[in-house]
Amino acid sequence: MRTLNVALGDRAYPIHIGRGLLAAPSLILPFLRTPRVVIVTNDVVGPLYLEGLQVALTGHGVRVDAVALPDGERHKDWQTLNLIFDKLLAERCERSTTLIALGGGVVGDMAGFAAATYQRGMPFIQIPTTLLSQVDSSVGGKTAINHPLGKNMIGAFYQPRLVLADISTLDTLPDRELKAGLAEVIKYGLIRDPALFEWLESNIERLLARDPDALTFAVERSCTNKAEVVAADETEQGERALLNLGHTFGHAIETGMGYGNWLHGEAVAAGTMMAAELSRRLGWISAEDVARIEVLHRRAGLPVQGPVLPVATYLDLMAHDKKVEAGRLRLVLLRAIGRAVIHGDAPPEAIAAAIEARCE
Amino acid sequence: MRTLNVALGDRAYPIHIGRGLLAAPSLILPFLRTPRVVIVTNDVVGPLYLEGLQVALTGHGVRVDAVALPDGERHKDWQTLNLIFDKLLAERCERSTTLIALGGGVVGDMAGFAAATYQRGMPFIQIPTTLLSQVDSSVGGKTAINHPLGKNMIGAFYQPRLVLADISTLDTLPDRELKAGLAEVIKYGLIRDPALFEWLESNIERLLARDPDALTFAVERSCTNKAEVVAADETEQGERALLNLGHTFGHAIETGMGYGNWLHGEAVAAGTMMAAELSRRLGWISAEDVARIEVLHRRAGLPVQGPVLPVATYLDLMAHDKKVEAGRLRLVLLRAIGRAVIHGDAPPEAIAAAIEARCE
Repeated sequence: MRTLNVALGDRAYPIHIGRGLLAAPSLILPFLRTPRVVIVTNDVVGPLYLEGLQVALTGHGVRVDAVALPDGERHKDWQTLNLIFDKLLAERCERSTTLIALGGGVVGDMAGFAAATYQRGMPFIQIPTTLLSQVDSSVGGKTAINHPLGKNMIGAFYQPRLVLADISTLDTLPDRELKAGLAEVIKYGLIRDPALFEWLESNIERLLARDPDALTFAVERSCTNKAEVVAADETEQGERALLNLGHTFGHAIETGMGYGNWLHGEAVAAGTMMAAELSRRLGWISAEDVARIEVLHRRAGLPVQGPVLPVATYLDLMAHDKKVEAGRLRLVLLRAIGRAVIHGDAPPEAIAAAIEARCE
Repeated sequence: MRTLNVALGDRAYPIHIGRGLLAAPSLILPFLRTPRVVIVTNDVVGPLYLEGLQVALTGHGVRVDAVALPDGERHKDWQTLNLIFDKLLAERCERSTTLIALGGGVVGDMAGFAAATYQRGMPFIQIPTTLLSQVDSSVGGKTAINHPLGKNMIGAFYQPRLVLADISTLDTLPDRELKAGLAEVIKYGLIRDPALFEWLESNIERLLARDPDALTFAVERSCTNKAEVVAADETEQGERALLNLGHTFGHAIETGMGYGNWLHGEAVAAGTMMAAELSRRLGWISAEDVARIEVLHRRAGLPVQGPVLPVATYLDLMAHDKKVEAGRLRLVLLRAIGRAVIHGDAPPEAIAAAIEARCE
């Protein structure tokens, strides 16, 4: 097992990464304020891992309740969030009860938002079971639900007390979701870790074959990058926005196509290609760089083009982005492979042309 | 105009108290991050004060949008909260847009929670227009909505950047709401300010007659008490819980009777009498003290008995209280008029008997 630290002062917390961690309740017990937890999972992950975790914790005298949400991004809404609150209140959970998210990004985002707001805040633990949530969404305290007009529009910054990334859970992850998670790993390479990008160019097939050492390396290296950025800029006043490479375009794809039809990672991949294309049109990176980025995404089994939506629809959806300031779209673009910047002055025609060039 | 300060470090903020403040946009302008606000009000307060505020701000180049919620505690729920999010998204508000609450406690609690969670946090200003919100709920950053199983169960600690208590707005406040607000003023006297309690004994009729000087004094003295407590214990780890005198009983009344049938202040008044009765049964205060507290509440036109609900129903509803710890109800009780304590060891029979004695 490897352990990283998210350095946030009195809210610092560890990320444990390794195989078989779910069977080691001793990793969780020190972080419970009282011997009482509620596990939030979904109807796909629950049947695989819930009982084992429940038995392990119960064996140590912890009272465990659980709630299984319907699976998928389309359920990341008020109605589903209320299932968590209903359970917490029906079981008379106190504000000292610990909420545990057992699942992917949707479960983590919703459980985290519930923990942030139930009785104005209860302790929270992330146990991510997808590659995407292990490398990205479980770390850093962003929680949210979607609104019909925009993804992740309603949420809170709320840090977990512990992240437990059990690599073994990736054994059961569907191929499509494994690939989607790779999009966020590639992202770290592109924005700040050129050595990781090169490592991916050499090892992408090992990841697709679920080589445990390669997966562990990818998760650890991604979390290291994420933890550094979050520690420096918890509430996204500056540098943290770079983690959203491809996300402004990507969120437009997810919202525009209906939540869940494109996986988040797939939308980020296509969005990253749009950002790369725009960076090239601004003269910042070469056509060769764009090709290199495209090849890696293709090898990872990820889309390199967005869906065919009118460019006006893309722009309209992007105008809801959280990085918009004084009506101006601020985009994460590339100065090089391994170096991203925030840019608020891309000409609208160039943005439109980049989208156009990257719609199938 | 008088100005108090809530000393919360880099999140400190002023409370301005006086007459005619709504007509002075210069008090608001320095707190806007961009020249753009959304005013949340309700369908009772809006027709009275919205247009004036809108015109005043627009005259200074501020873009103003507004949303009017249905009035009343029964609407303090997800559905109504979503009206705010719908407006913010439809108008493409950014996370730098300022949300202004113009109304009573329900408007302030909901607008505050919306501000805390829209795009994970936007600037927020409180303009309370009821006595209850001016003396209590607008200060201190508690925001929340209700759940069918418990009042204020879903929320956040989120401080405003400014509180503007315009005493003139009390001119239009219905008598019943004026009286309800007095319950929270009496509360400060009981928990930590015996001189205020005595002042109220001498001046309660002036307040009921809406004497401007008396109202200004009551608001300022209440806010001074509130600001001191909040500065010492923002997230209610200790002392702040004392502000909930009468509230555990009171929330049970509000939830048990259906939100809005008892005003919050009315329920707090009856709950405070239950807490006083229990304190007497524990031998902490005298029957004379209880009588003195009762007389002041009666003179303020407030109920001194709770509604007739089975005691078991009271206890069941109280078990959802946010102060419950390890299954144990922690109550705010009185050691004297002017001194409250948190107590977790009241015998269940004594609690039941105190409720019984104070149900009509």
